Amino acid sequence: MTKYETKLRVQYYETDAMGIVHHSNYIRFFETARTEFFRSRGYSYDAMEKAGVWMPVHSVTADFKAPAVYDEEILVACWIEKLKGASIELGYEVRGAETGELYTKGTSSHGFTTADLKPIRLKKEAPDIYNVLKAAMD
Amino acid sequence: MTKYETKLRVQYYETDAMGIVHHSNYIRFFETARTEFFRSRGYSYDAMEKAGVWMPVHSVTADFKAPAVYDEEILVACWIEKLKGASIELGYEVRGAETGELYTKGTSSHGFTTADLKPIRLKKEAPDIYNVLKAAMD
Amino acid sequence: MTKYETKLRVQYYETDAMGIVHHSNYIRFFETARTEFFRSRGYSYDAMEKAGVWMPVHSVTADFKAPAVYDEEILVACWIEKLKGASIELGYEVRGAETGELYTKGTSSHGFTTADLKPIRLKKEAPDIYNVLKAAMD
Amino acid sequence: MTKYETKLRVQYYETDAMGIVHHSNYIRFFETARTEFFRSRGYSYDAMEKAGVWMPVHSVTADFKAPAVYDEEILVACWIEKLKGASIELGYEVRGAETGELYTKGTSSHGFTTADLKPIRLKKEAPDIYNVLKAAMD
Repeated sequence: MTKYETKLRVQYYETDAMGIVHHSNYIRFFETARTEFFRSRGYSYDAMEKAGVWMPVHSVTADFKAPAVYDEEILVACWIEKLKGASIELGYEVRGAETGELYTKGTSSHGFTTADLKPIRLKKEAPDIYNVLKAAMD
Repeated sequence: MTKYETKLRVQYYETDAMGIVHHSNYIRFFETARTEFFRSRGYSYDAMEKAGVWMPVHSVTADFKAPAVYDEEILVACWIEKLKGASIELGYEVRGAETGELYTKGTSSHGFTTADLKPIRLKKEAPDIYNVLKAAMD
Repeated sequence: MTKYETKLRVQYYETDAMGIVHHSNYIRFFETARTEFFRSRGYSYDAMEKAGVWMPVHSVTADFKAPAVYDEEILVACWIEKLKGASIELGYEVRGAETGELYTKGTSSHGFTTADLKPIRLKKEAPDIYNVLKAAMD
Repeated sequence: MTKYETKLRVQYYETDAMGIVHHSNYIRFFETARTEFFRSRGYSYDAMEKAGVWMPVHSVTADFKAPAVYDEEILVACWIEKLKGASIELGYEVRGAETGELYTKGTSSHGFTTADLKPIRLKKEAPDIYNVLKAAMD
């Protein structure tokens, strides 16, 4: 299983009055990591949308283990947990870049749809993308 | 089980290029609803912190059913799913204020801690707050 | 000159590691206040867009005098500084709701445009809206 | 005058329903660029704070010329406009990384203070930092 890592630096506007990253921002880090993971496989969101494939978020989960702090570099790993005909499940881990300490674990699930959000079977409608994603699971 | 509802209006800066509320913002709506629910019971976060009780987020989940759009009023219901000695689980539902349509369901779990994040048993350390939360479950 | 006030409560996710509202959020408070000001005059953004009028932001300024803190209620005043044929300038003041202390002053300027951002002369293209805004300056 | 450039990629959560970057986010891009500019000179915010120097934002301005869109790379230039004994003024330009088109121009002004926000004269209290910033103006 390939885990693709994106390095981010915590911004001041992402912290809160507890002096740590506000928990809602990890959901945004997941999105960035997911985008870069797909880009690394040749499918930026633009490329997917040009191929007629949208990927709306159906659900997210996040478990907060330890807090990231201002200006620290973090590594956000993203990988494919499950690839089904019409949906996909992704996993995430956010770690401190220096220490490797696990800060947050999470998941997201997505449907494959047309631009107007009608579900499609990826394998049938866009086999190229399906195969690239399948290969990314090895 | 008491469900406390907070009415919010979707702001332009909360939408994204799909023309709907960005999914990460529902996690923020949950926080607002949780705060107002506690305030309605006499315990604003300030009051809790003055009583020596912090409530860091351990985990969140969100299921996105249908999108809220710009300028629409939404109702965010919040209630207590489980109250244990040292932790609490909350449930959320976000609905369109006009139609009642369910947009998002979610949960959050929290520990009770001191200011420096040492776990405490709420029932023992702050029985007043424990009893108020217990009563809010009826 | 009418100043329309919108009351907001500072959210946790709007604070930063200094324990105060992150300065970028005042620009968002301005937007909320501007929207409510227009709504109070009978022109929500939806109503304006239905009338064929868009109002993209050309510039903003903000002077930060004193910080708002978590959970505090703030009053954001908004008024029309200048109304020209094809543009409008708005003023803003953010104050503590309890003390009246001035936290932030600001301005924004906007053009009037069609949906595809072609400049229009409001007075000519939508005299109803122009007159309502003109009246709001008294 | 040295202009230090930071490359950023526009995130989905930074766009709004107009399909472009929400204007408030440019204020955040300025902050990131300012931080990286200082880091490039050997003074991360942490390093400055360790030296006893804080730099609260006194004011910001932004002029929006053209919109950045989702997933596009942008270059945010930051430079010192004025360095006075107790304050600093910075300039910013946001451009499309590919085309060089100017999207947004801006400024920010900051005081130099202690941790509890008492103004200090940088030249006297932290001559090392003052000299580094002075040199960055050439």
